Amino acid sequence: MKKIAVLLSGCGVYDGSEIYETVLTLLALDKAGVAYQCVAPDMEQYHVVNHLTGEPADEKRNVLVEAARLARGDIKSLSDVNPDDFGGLMVPGGFGAAKNLSQFAFKGADTDVQPDVLQFCQAFANAAKPAGYICIAPTLVNKVYGGGVTVTVGNDADTAKAIEAMGGKHQVCEVSQACTDEQHKVVTTPAYMLANSISEAQLGIEKCVQQVIAWA
Amino acid sequence: MKKIAVLLSGCGVYDGSEIYETVLTLLALDKAGVAYQCVAPDMEQYHVVNHLTGEPADEKRNVLVEAARLARGDIKSLSDVNPDDFGGLMVPGGFGAAKNLSQFAFKGADTDVQPDVLQFCQAFANAAKPAGYICIAPTLVNKVYGGGVTVTVGNDADTAKAIEAMGGKHQVCEVSQACTDEQHKVVTTPAYMLANSISEAQLGIEKCVQQVIAWA
Repeated sequence: MKKIAVLLSGCGVYDGSEIYETVLTLLALDKAGVAYQCVAPDMEQYHVVNHLTGEPADEKRNVLVEAARLARGDIKSLSDVNPDDFGGLMVPGGFGAAKNLSQFAFKGADTDVQPDVLQFCQAFANAAKPAGYICIAPTLVNKVYGGGVTVTVGNDADTAKAIEAMGGKHQVCEVSQACTDEQHKVVTTPAYMLANSISEAQLGIEKCVQQVIAWA
Repeated sequence: MKKIAVLLSGCGVYDGSEIYETVLTLLALDKAGVAYQCVAPDMEQYHVVNHLTGEPADEKRNVLVEAARLARGDIKSLSDVNPDDFGGLMVPGGFGAAKNLSQFAFKGADTDVQPDVLQFCQAFANAAKPAGYICIAPTLVNKVYGGGVTVTVGNDADTAKAIEAMGGKHQVCEVSQACTDEQHKVVTTPAYMLANSISEAQLGIEKCVQQVIAWA
């Protein structure tokens, strides 16, 4: 079985990848005996948020460099990897998915997906390889697949409406569950869109990872 | 049962708290139904390491602000907490424990422990409350307890020698196990001193957390 690519967007819930979601994703893959490779786009972060105050900071950071923290240095730039080398894709959440990988946080349904991210994710879609998107990352899915994919972000009505506006279908889902679109081999789970604790987030993320492995 | 304090030193293996060790600690506490509070000293990091290249970066970051990433913003400064409010202590590893909480990475057995960190950790020692130190963090223990504590950092001979020079005893330990000093209620585990994977690190960390909970 080929490695699973884990696409990161920085390191920290407010400006990058959600740390717990990422670690729980890697843990679930590793416990299943499945090898993974963290990857990230080499680009400047939209902004840096001071996670103590919640306020933007007057700093610049690079998505790939900060994502390397989450990968203990074992990460590759999107420009240095070939999607053919991977059997499936996982995209953890965190605002980085909606601020760096796309502009969903600012533009809603009018968002674009960052070009190299779009190309990478579409390679999995076009090859009918499975993909799991977590938390707010499912807002990328219908831009990647050109619509028609059923996803969940939990029960947030505004985000659900934006997903429908992008041609997708939104399914309400509990934090402990995952939403499966068999036709597109896309699985999504709410995680910290709903989770009140790290162990709550783990339940859905494990289901998400197990579904990607089952398809891969 | 009172909350467990989780003492952080930044966010990232090379200049702060090891991310996986921290998340696995929080996960083990949460799965056991035990509440926790992340805390960190409000101080400048010794340095910032670019985790992509492994090289120091020309930047300044604050330990508390970066540790807040690991806590999803839910963190308190050491100066704003009272050790009396906690039933036990967990200290994940990462170079931050040996570069920010102490200077062990540079001074070996001649290290000091950062004064407010020393005071906080000694409050647990003096009250005979349990403490778990992970990875390289056990190098702090004998400075905190004034010697005589048996700890492990796995099987690294140089670090073991430095621990003995600080008045401690070093016990060789596998990554899946934890080293218990019943007299001082101190438990330690090698984690990423030895771990080849995140699920390997989880085994010892779970034992470490469970021992602290059993004592608390």
